[in-house]
Amino acid sequence: MGSNLYLGLVHHPIYDKRKEVVATAVTNFDVHDIARCARTFGLGGFFVITPLESQIQLVERIIRHWVEGTGAAYNPTRKESLSRVQVSRSIDEADRTVSDLWKKKVKRVATGAAPHPQSIGFKPLRQLLGDQETPFLILFGTGWGLTWEVKDSSDYVLAPIEGRGYNHLPVRSAVAIILDRLLGDRV
Amino acid sequence: MGSNLYLGLVHHPIYDKRKEVVATAVTNFDVHDIARCARTFGLGGFFVITPLESQIQLVERIIRHWVEGTGAAYNPTRKESLSRVQVSRSIDEADRTVSDLWKKKVKRVATGAAPHPQSIGFKPLRQLLGDQETPFLILFGTGWGLTWEVKDSSDYVLAPIEGRGYNHLPVRSAVAIILDRLLGDRV
Repeated sequence: MGSNLYLGLVHHPIYDKRKEVVATAVTNFDVHDIARCARTFGLGGFFVITPLESQIQLVERIIRHWVEGTGAAYNPTRKESLSRVQVSRSIDEADRTVSDLWKKKVKRVATGAAPHPQSIGFKPLRQLLGDQETPFLILFGTGWGLTWEVKDSSDYVLAPIEGRGYNHLPVRSAVAIILDRLLGDRV
Repeated sequence: MGSNLYLGLVHHPIYDKRKEVVATAVTNFDVHDIARCARTFGLGGFFVITPLESQIQLVERIIRHWVEGTGAAYNPTRKESLSRVQVSRSIDEADRTVSDLWKKKVKRVATGAAPHPQSIGFKPLRQLLGDQETPFLILFGTGWGLTWEVKDSSDYVLAPIEGRGYNHLPVRSAVAIILDRLLGDRV
């Protein structure tokens, strides 16, 4: 279970503090932490989504260092996690990569910290993921989150993680919690 | 729920790659991400545990910047999370801070990626935490993990998060998942 789930970390289109649509910069820790979570839960793949040429090159350099470069010998567990990371220029490009591989339409799931009128809970989505014949692409926003257009054009919007009156988890922590809720052992 | 749980991020005593006992350096992202998770789940407090004077000063400077400095106005949600962080020189010092506050013996819980002969599962620990009269201190190791002495002298050792043949989560992700399993809404 999990290999029909792909994760996209979206750097564009993203809201900034003033709710303007921007492209955010890639954070090195996001790539490492999310790659490790994706590997831990057996995901099909992890797409870093950014249209900016400088950021694409940065991510590709990070991956190369740990997968082929001196990093691979220094820390083989990073090689194992980062070898499943790839860069896409847009959400649609990541989606196409998955649908080409599966020869099927991909179900898109958007996430966010704010409630959405038509959201799906963790348990129902966990059950849907049990259908191993259907590929899913779950999208996480950086900055101030995914745009409404991205949410409204997704097949599902996942319910937010409810905090005790505080709703500001780093995307790295949200990914860890959400993947565990969707795919982790229930003990 | 959660306010009787305190978290300690341990930088000494810690194993390094060769299983020698060392003091690790503090990672800025650990402080921020774990502070946000601790705030999200309503923990009683978060101790960064290090005996190194340079590291103590570093953490205190980070906290001051975001709680009192220019950072407080720039990003109030960081002020809110970091105002619950404090530095302790040892596990015992953190433990004493909690027991002085509660006038009670603190139950210690160690965590780690490796299985331990006498571990407690997530569900039983979740139930124990429901006893709001008892303070708990949950310890997370950095580097290559908590020493056996720390584990063996704890009241409980929590079961590891089981990955799909991969057991190398960053401590930041492990904290997020474990706090959610112990205190998160079950939806």
